[in-house]
Amino acid sequence: RNNLETRISLPHDSSEKFMDRMKAAGEDNAARLVAFYLKSIGVNAQYMNPKDAGLFLSDEYGNARVLPQSYKNLAKLSSVDGIIIFPGFFGYSLSGEVVTFPRGGSDITGSILAASLQVDLYENFTDVDSVFVANPKLIKNPKPISILTYREMRELSYAGFSVLHEETLEPVFKRGVPVNIKNTNNPSSPGTLIVPTRENKTGPVAGIAGDTGFCSININKYMMNREIGFGRKVLQVLEEEFVPFEHMPSGIDDISIIVRKKYLDDDRKSRIMERIAKELMVDSINIEYDLGLVMVVGEGMKNTPGILHQVTSALAKSKINIRMVNQGSSEVSIMFGICEDDVDKAIVAIYNEFF
Amino acid sequence: RNNLETRISLPHDSSEKFMDRMKAAGEDNAARLVAFYLKSIGVNAQYMNPKDAGLFLSDEYGNARVLPQSYKNLAKLSSVDGIIIFPGFFGYSLSGEVVTFPRGGSDITGSILAASLQVDLYENFTDVDSVFVANPKLIKNPKPISILTYREMRELSYAGFSVLHEETLEPVFKRGVPVNIKNTNNPSSPGTLIVPTRENKTGPVAGIAGDTGFCSININKYMMNREIGFGRKVLQVLEEEFVPFEHMPSGIDDISIIVRKKYLDDDRKSRIMERIAKELMVDSINIEYDLGLVMVVGEGMKNTPGILHQVTSALAKSKINIRMVNQGSSEVSIMFGICEDDVDKAIVAIYNEFF
Repeated sequence: RNNLETRISLPHDSSEKFMDRMKAAGEDNAARLVAFYLKSIGVNAQYMNPKDAGLFLSDEYGNARVLPQSYKNLAKLSSVDGIIIFPGFFGYSLSGEVVTFPRGGSDITGSILAASLQVDLYENFTDVDSVFVANPKLIKNPKPISILTYREMRELSYAGFSVLHEETLEPVFKRGVPVNIKNTNNPSSPGTLIVPTRENKTGPVAGIAGDTGFCSININKYMMNREIGFGRKVLQVLEEEFVPFEHMPSGIDDISIIVRKKYLDDDRKSRIMERIAKELMVDSINIEYDLGLVMVVGEGMKNTPGILHQVTSALAKSKINIRMVNQGSSEVSIMFGICEDDVDKAIVAIYNEFF
Repeated sequence: RNNLETRISLPHDSSEKFMDRMKAAGEDNAARLVAFYLKSIGVNAQYMNPKDAGLFLSDEYGNARVLPQSYKNLAKLSSVDGIIIFPGFFGYSLSGEVVTFPRGGSDITGSILAASLQVDLYENFTDVDSVFVANPKLIKNPKPISILTYREMRELSYAGFSVLHEETLEPVFKRGVPVNIKNTNNPSSPGTLIVPTRENKTGPVAGIAGDTGFCSININKYMMNREIGFGRKVLQVLEEEFVPFEHMPSGIDDISIIVRKKYLDDDRKSRIMERIAKELMVDSINIEYDLGLVMVVGEGMKNTPGILHQVTSALAKSKINIRMVNQGSSEVSIMFGICEDDVDKAIVAIYNEFF
């Protein structure tokens, strides 16, 4: 309670600073409490303050990124004797303010610590027994995944797997530290191991994910592919309007830009349409909504001929119309663009085909 | 002979000017001769000089483009009585010099005339009975194509159909004039009609084309898709090195740029690889050679579910590994990236599947 009172009483010149300071209180006090309890029962444990340990973050409140020097600072913790209880979710800016990570923040702290200390294994305790091949809300008792590569996990996360937030894996990925996702409520379950590389013992497909909320800006211009700089200029317009693009499949005289609908409010949409039509003198431009993406992911797919054929079979049998296919850019995934409403049906169909 | 002597004796301050003047002699004199002959047998025909008619071109010798005012000038020819014999392949620069079109030049002249005069039909006489569904060198007696849309023709031309040069169709396409490709040596054959739109009476696939000589620059970077401007910057590097890109399929952390090998000499290649690696701080970059593209083209494909499945079936049966698939950007085609050496085999397999 003392701690909370101090946090409140400290001068707060900006509401976001204050917000971050308060948000971090739960994790910080829980860590202090656990350390206190462990010590009280005779365990050699201690609370470690992130500032003392040197976990420095960018001063983007609520959305901080780790600063590179933190890795070196935290590596020194290896010389500390006994168990360290390190609070997750926050660190300190170089000016000494509390700053918090984005969503999944405590996992990020763990990942940074694991990477700094070059540990053998980063155990991440969550609330599921493992990562599953497909969403358990769609498939009854889906197959658990015992082992995945970082790349596979990353592609699955992109299209809706939400066990670990995307940023979480970056620190451990960069240093090759394996991650074990385990269930807090069932710690004896082996969970899912995420590793740099793996042998393929489980068949070509590792997981199937799907996400909705995409749309496709379709542009047509006769002789487009002879016009040097066309694609670059389209992307430049999007960049200037702060709309990140997801994919850009192109034909000969056609180009489609897949973007997430949430970035395309009405104002931006009409501005982008107008600018592209005018600045690039296109023959036609339109937006197709209701696009969903389904990713079929697996390290084994590259060496298994006929995968695409198997997936398209499954989709054809379920009468799902394929609007877009993107295979080959990534070695570990094939992406299908279909109607949003078909995404769940497609995941079930593909699951039943392979499992 | 007089004409030739004049051409030679005219001052030639530049070799390319002289070259174009000489290259145009054949077409010009043939036109004069035909007009003279027709008149001699009593036909109301006359030779028309492109300068008098107002066919003005950019002064890019050997690679000229038509200037917009030409269309208006040539439209006036509709008031001329009788048959006009108009020499193909060349026009005049605004400074009065003879300039020639690129490859397929006489077809371009015809197309410009047809567009200017808004004719009902542009008959283009060549040396084949029609456009065929697939290359007659690969398939014995392939099905002739009786009717094609401009879009279909354009996609097929891109991947190796060489009946009409790409630029040829642009003028008529822009004004919606139908083209009839006929055989000079067999004028009674109906040939192939190229039209703005068509009803689909012949099945989903209209033609199958393939081309070799592509390569794929594969770039990987963890969290690439979160980096705004990444794709644009890659394209900018290529543009600055004067390498046009064909396609840019992208995964989550991967992007591939398909380019024609001929643009990528060793110098440029290493410069591009270095710049992308350094300026974009990628995790890995490599080039995959020996890429061939096969295009399956047809206006009817969009409304026929299962096409992709049928094509992948055919390729799987022939044990052809699919490296890349691009469907959905163009409504009238699906593009497959396969090993160059498999292109012919793939065309045969797909042909046998659909015809």
